[in-house]
Amino acid sequence: MTIRLLITGGTFDKEYDELSGTLYFKDTHVQEMLRLGRCRLDVAVRTVMMVDSLEMSDADRQTILANCRQASEKKIVITHGTDTMVETARVLAAGAPDKTIVLTGAMVPYAFGSSDGLFNLGSALSFVQVLPPGVSIAMNGRCFPWNLVRKNTSLGYFEEIPM
Amino acid sequence: MTIRLLITGGTFDKEYDELSGTLYFKDTHVQEMLRLGRCRLDVAVRTVMMVDSLEMSDADRQTILANCRQASEKKIVITHGTDTMVETARVLAAGAPDKTIVLTGAMVPYAFGSSDGLFNLGSALSFVQVLPPGVSIAMNGRCFPWNLVRKNTSLGYFEEIPM
Amino acid sequence: MTIRLLITGGTFDKEYDELSGTLYFKDTHVQEMLRLGRCRLDVAVRTVMMVDSLEMSDADRQTILANCRQASEKKIVITHGTDTMVETARVLAAGAPDKTIVLTGAMVPYAFGSSDGLFNLGSALSFVQVLPPGVSIAMNGRCFPWNLVRKNTSLGYFEEIPM
Amino acid sequence: MTIRLLITGGTFDKEYDELSGTLYFKDTHVQEMLRLGRCRLDVAVRTVMMVDSLEMSDADRQTILANCRQASEKKIVITHGTDTMVETARVLAAGAPDKTIVLTGAMVPYAFGSSDGLFNLGSALSFVQVLPPGVSIAMNGRCFPWNLVRKNTSLGYFEEIPM
Repeated sequence: MTIRLLITGGTFDKEYDELSGTLYFKDTHVQEMLRLGRCRLDVAVRTVMMVDSLEMSDADRQTILANCRQASEKKIVITHGTDTMVETARVLAAGAPDKTIVLTGAMVPYAFGSSDGLFNLGSALSFVQVLPPGVSIAMNGRCFPWNLVRKNTSLGYFEEIPM
Repeated sequence: MTIRLLITGGTFDKEYDELSGTLYFKDTHVQEMLRLGRCRLDVAVRTVMMVDSLEMSDADRQTILANCRQASEKKIVITHGTDTMVETARVLAAGAPDKTIVLTGAMVPYAFGSSDGLFNLGSALSFVQVLPPGVSIAMNGRCFPWNLVRKNTSLGYFEEIPM
Repeated sequence: MTIRLLITGGTFDKEYDELSGTLYFKDTHVQEMLRLGRCRLDVAVRTVMMVDSLEMSDADRQTILANCRQASEKKIVITHGTDTMVETARVLAAGAPDKTIVLTGAMVPYAFGSSDGLFNLGSALSFVQVLPPGVSIAMNGRCFPWNLVRKNTSLGYFEEIPM
Repeated sequence: MTIRLLITGGTFDKEYDELSGTLYFKDTHVQEMLRLGRCRLDVAVRTVMMVDSLEMSDADRQTILANCRQASEKKIVITHGTDTMVETARVLAAGAPDKTIVLTGAMVPYAFGSSDGLFNLGSALSFVQVLPPGVSIAMNGRCFPWNLVRKNTSLGYFEEIPM
């Protein structure tokens, strides 16, 4: 079983530009993270875009959806900024109902050493192997169906939507 | 759902003693790792022992089994040295068949910065939530039924036992 | 011999705010760095301010100068943002000519794991012990008299002013 | 001014072998550390040997001495295991009295993330630039003439020999 891993940017892959003192995107760290995690899964990585999810457009989401639909794999993990992860999940759920898609991200850039990214990547790659088709969000060690979750922006974690 | 997390030592928790220049056990790093991973699961941690798995005795394995049986939780993750992880899994499979037990470990100590431990912990905590009762080993992003896996000691990863 | 260590902020001590995704100041990491470096010098640390050096005012520089003059120690190290380090050095050279003052900083925040801060701190604390009274800047393993140096902002390091 | 940097091994450059679970030497990390420290000194690195200083022989010390004598540079930094650093310093002081030689090392391997090595390297490279000919040991932020210092093996740092 091959797992398709789509990179879209987000905090996960942000870096520090030491000349300007600002955060920016260069290349994804996902391959390094898979190596660090001694991951032995058959993972096919593709960088679809490198954007802050607050700046992700409808067209960007259609591009991610197209990548999911065109992938020959049935199991897909997507790294994504946390702020609009649920919005993208909604688009994917409507357009690619036959795939198991797990979105994940990070609150701290992997390059900054104290990241939750490695933990979340291990989690997302695990959930995607065992879950049936559908779109989920794996954050904070948990996995939520996309339509039952929201980001609590004041506390910085994902939680169930109260009934 | 509460997950019981049992600590038994292994490479996962080894540290460097700067006076003697050797590796040793002090306290577990699991709580720090859960915090780093922004884990929001309800995890109850218990340090059962801190041993190198090559030095784990039959009595030690019975102690681990007793901890699994006495736990009120149905979902159990165990951090364990990789060298005899399968042996312990065999004891648990025979003695605690009604629980979902996932063993995990690391090839590099967490304290040494480049560890697979954080990735594996995220993976094990994910698999344990969705798997039915039984004993599994989560390493290298994969999850194996205990009786179908072995450690490839020359390559340093876990693999299926060839039929 | 006691060394006075004055903290003024700068990239050295910036942190990542995971809720807003921006950089900010909390507490200095200098004590942790001294512990990590197994520093056995008699160092008296004082946080004077926590500011980005681009936002440092004339009044701020007078405060730093006052701290240098009032210190009972003859040897002073100052952590400072790199962008206006030379400007502050000029003020100190005019106002505290009897002290050995070494300014240092970092291009990458210490908290981001790949920092030059630890290297520079070791360097500045060494130079200050052996240099005569005067104001210097210790960056990139080198030590420059304040009036012969400038930051090369396009390359990100300090260099002699060409004659 | 070029500084000659001689690598001899020691804790500084030890690594963790994940197959055997033991510490060993592969390549030096000094170039990576100089890059991390944004060092802009003209440093010529040479790996002379990679040994634990407890296993350093008289012949090894003569090899280090020969390297110091043959170097065209007047300024030399040597990375060395801490346990017999003073013994090597004695040989160098007798045989190469016209050079400024600073020995340094680490209590924790650089590869283990929490190392004093980067701090000490910054320190040694600074002291060597300003000290007159002679052999010194730079550890713990301090610099000692070789004949006035000893390693306190129970506390793990260097200290003056009591008169």
